[in-house]
Amino acid sequence: MAKVVSPREIAACLTEHWSPRVVAEVDDAYIKVAKVQGQLAWHQHENEDELFLVLKGRLVIELEAGAPIELAEGQMFVVPKGVRHNPVAAEECHVMLIERKSTLHTGDVVNEKTQSLAEQLRPL
Amino acid sequence: MAKVVSPREIAACLTEHWSPRVVAEVDDAYIKVAKVQGQLAWHQHENEDELFLVLKGRLVIELEAGAPIELAEGQMFVVPKGVRHNPVAAEECHVMLIERKSTLHTGDVVNEKTQSLAEQLRPL
Repeated sequence: MAKVVSPREIAACLTEHWSPRVVAEVDDAYIKVAKVQGQLAWHQHENEDELFLVLKGRLVIELEAGAPIELAEGQMFVVPKGVRHNPVAAEECHVMLIERKSTLHTGDVVNEKTQSLAEQLRPL
Repeated sequence: MAKVVSPREIAACLTEHWSPRVVAEVDDAYIKVAKVQGQLAWHQHENEDELFLVLKGRLVIELEAGAPIELAEGQMFVVPKGVRHNPVAAEECHVMLIERKSTLHTGDVVNEKTQSLAEQLRPL
């Protein structure tokens, strides 16, 4: 069970965009990594905060109300529960996410990019 | 409320060892950063997992049962609830922690290094 995890290395090995993979769990939260490019979808998580930490590249988190949040490598931002947002990466970007286990990938929206929890839990 | 956080930059600015500071919250978890050197204390958190992510340097997490976990920069490890452990850094090391809000700094032990939650929540 004792497992050392290297989020940056795992993210670099992913082959699909917008397909987060669970790399660790801390109580009722999952730690995930993803490789992203383009935009995901406007959505919100009614009951869960969501943390984005940029491992490589740059990520913009568009917010329905307010200026977009621009994150450089090493920076993080918490989207509060109930806040409509859309993650966008002009170029390929690697991110780490911290989310409650109940969090749905694209929140209240389902589109062709939506990943089930089972897909996110697949062995790496 | 919209706040971009740079864990590595905050950790680098800390002046005390073993004095974690809360930099973000995600639902019922705090994200903390700390600058550490030497050893903290053998302790355990009966009801909470604890994630260590090394931002700079190297950290060893000694475990009562099993080989010590050696973490290089960018690597992380989750100490499961109930597992007695002791974080040790031969040289100065910067870490990010993910812990439930209820987690006590040195768990079931109090020593001269123990920091209250109020101390960890002080403005940076």
